[in-house]
Amino acid sequence: MPTDSATKIDTLAVVGTGLIGSSVARAARARGVVRRIVGIDRSVAHRERALTLGIVDEASAELGNASGAEVVVFCTPVDAIAGQVLALAPACAAGTLLTDVGSTKEEIVAEVESSLPAGVSFVGGHPLAGSEKGGPDHASAHLFQGRLTVLTRTTRTDPSALARATAFWEGLGARVKVMAPDEHDRALAVTSHLPHLAASALAGMLPPELYELTASGFRDTTRLAESDPSLWAAICRQNRAAVLRALELLRDRLESFHQALASNDAEALIELLAKGKKVKQALANERGE
Amino acid sequence: MPTDSATKIDTLAVVGTGLIGSSVARAARARGVVRRIVGIDRSVAHRERALTLGIVDEASAELGNASGAEVVVFCTPVDAIAGQVLALAPACAAGTLLTDVGSTKEEIVAEVESSLPAGVSFVGGHPLAGSEKGGPDHASAHLFQGRLTVLTRTTRTDPSALARATAFWEGLGARVKVMAPDEHDRALAVTSHLPHLAASALAGMLPPELYELTASGFRDTTRLAESDPSLWAAICRQNRAAVLRALELLRDRLESFHQALASNDAEALIELLAKGKKVKQALANERGE
Repeated sequence: MPTDSATKIDTLAVVGTGLIGSSVARAARARGVVRRIVGIDRSVAHRERALTLGIVDEASAELGNASGAEVVVFCTPVDAIAGQVLALAPACAAGTLLTDVGSTKEEIVAEVESSLPAGVSFVGGHPLAGSEKGGPDHASAHLFQGRLTVLTRTTRTDPSALARATAFWEGLGARVKVMAPDEHDRALAVTSHLPHLAASALAGMLPPELYELTASGFRDTTRLAESDPSLWAAICRQNRAAVLRALELLRDRLESFHQALASNDAEALIELLAKGKKVKQALANERGE
Repeated sequence: MPTDSATKIDTLAVVGTGLIGSSVARAARARGVVRRIVGIDRSVAHRERALTLGIVDEASAELGNASGAEVVVFCTPVDAIAGQVLALAPACAAGTLLTDVGSTKEEIVAEVESSLPAGVSFVGGHPLAGSEKGGPDHASAHLFQGRLTVLTRTTRTDPSALARATAFWEGLGARVKVMAPDEHDRALAVTSHLPHLAASALAGMLPPELYELTASGFRDTTRLAESDPSLWAAICRQNRAAVLRALELLRDRLESFHQALASNDAEALIELLAKGKKVKQALANERGE
């Protein structure tokens, strides 16, 4: 539901007008939670498209131009976010809410909290929505509709800032779940980072002579391999321990399939496959699909 | 393009009226390549749905009722096909074309060719199309449209039977590629069977407490895990050596990701991810996506 006028934000700044940043802007505009949107992006192409498409009211290459906003959402690569937050924070008015959409949370939140000046607040965020397609042209006002956004809480999180961040994301149509940053990262290593690596591994091992022998199964299983390599390398490196553990869990599970097949154990193989199907059915039921 | 009346089949029998068999029937009917369709299925529910939906003109539980057809397409589990072909063949008139849609070819073709009576022909087939959803209700006349169907050729394949099978599948809208059975199986181990196991492994390792933290990436990467466990256990067992090798290749590739990440080697990680993206882009270009 749109927020009422009492909670309407005057100026929202979005740092990084790629798919997620532009979708935040589009959703904020479409749902009437903001009067004016400033987009910050180093890419001329992104700035021009974001302006042309009416995603932002003003576009700038200068991070400092976000300092007048009441709420600033950082939608840049995970290895850039903390530095940008800390660079902007001293210029912000007291009460400014800074938040982000990075796929990892522990390093970002720890780095920001170690040096954040008094008066401004930071709440880590991660909307579980996206696309392998990037850029403002693929942005959607509905990207977060009904989807989960994780917000982080630590011992240093200001409860009123967390409440404002919650209202902001709910205003964009998302459901909000509050988690500790490390808890988020361990979970996402399995639900998101590992599938990216598995998709990439599967795609990367396909020799050209087999291209014509792929069908929709291969295409869907490897969809995430279309994502940006630099962005995802940074995400995996920021969540290194948990992603390494997830890779080991997948290796062990694939080894179970290998053993069942090597020993021609039909029952064991069926049981392993049935476990996967059971999870898919539970996920579908949970979503009412 | 529809075949002309000279090549029109009088009676087509489809053994197994699940998703693929019912789609073969729907496509044959829609494209006018057949006058009458007989469906054979042990499942009362499948027979009744196939009749109710007008997919077949006659439905029977008795395999023998397929013997009067000019073309019989076996759309049953891979570990049932060869036995059914050999059970039906002696009852068929000279010139009958028997073919199948099994996801594996080497074992099926070898078993059939070892005992096929003179007069009838068998050509192994595998349309690279399907769905994780089974049954006649999900059948589509367009399932094979523009998709590849592999037909097998061995030293014992009758060239005129291969030509008829090619015309049949092209009549359903498919493109046809002729391969040796073992060549098909080695390729599909990588392009299809391995993605099924990887999807199932990923889905199967997800604990319930992480369900709500999955998004579209996890859902798509694990879509194939919805497939029928018994069918896929049989497919993997029929293609055991090649699937074991494919699992080893994936294990090695995941190990490369693990090493790059463990040593925090950003360049190596980006290179691995870029390889996957490059393959996806090449696949998309090839398909004109």
